[in-house]
Amino acid sequence: MVRAGSLHRNLPSRPLACEITDIFVDRPGLRIERIVSSGQATPEGEWYDQDGDEWVLVVAGAARLRIEDEPGDRELGSGDWVLLPAHCRHRVTWTQAEPPTIWLAIHF
Amino acid sequence: MVRAGSLHRNLPSRPLACEITDIFVDRPGLRIERIVSSGQATPEGEWYDQDGDEWVLVVAGAARLRIEDEPGDRELGSGDWVLLPAHCRHRVTWTQAEPPTIWLAIHF
Repeated sequence: MVRAGSLHRNLPSRPLACEITDIFVDRPGLRIERIVSSGQATPEGEWYDQDGDEWVLVVAGAARLRIEDEPGDRELGSGDWVLLPAHCRHRVTWTQAEPPTIWLAIHF
Repeated sequence: MVRAGSLHRNLPSRPLACEITDIFVDRPGLRIERIVSSGQATPEGEWYDQDGDEWVLVVAGAARLRIEDEPGDRELGSGDWVLLPAHCRHRVTWTQAEPPTIWLAIHF
């Protein structure tokens, strides 16, 4: 049985309090997941600082990403991807809430 | 320097004779790539039979995928993904040519 689905399925009809994460592949050294954001951002003063690399794509919606040591936010829209090396400290400063923002994240 | 780009950039303005492949990550056990198809399909009678697993997404456009032992083609559109286990024989029987079909393929 071949697993399949759609990244545009099971979206919230209105903004939610939390992000929704669906994991498609999870094995040592690789996780592929969809994250649906509806306005969430990284809490003020916090940074992601990950032990692994991450390739992340905005499938739909829009977001702003701040990478430490960069002068300002990066504006991301549909189709934009970023390769974040391990320990590249970053924060999501804004996500579009309606319609929600769909991310595809590959952690490796 | 953080690498970044857009899956919707550098698309052919008209159908090409061959598919275009851009590799974003290539290391042992993982390859992340964009493939742009403009009407290509797997040659008649040929099957993909891969040693590794593949998670593949149609980012834009449309395609038809045939998996051996399934009664017919799967219709894929924007946002549809399929997890193809190693040695799951499959063929692409059709891709939308205009606008082109954008795939994101993760081989692992």
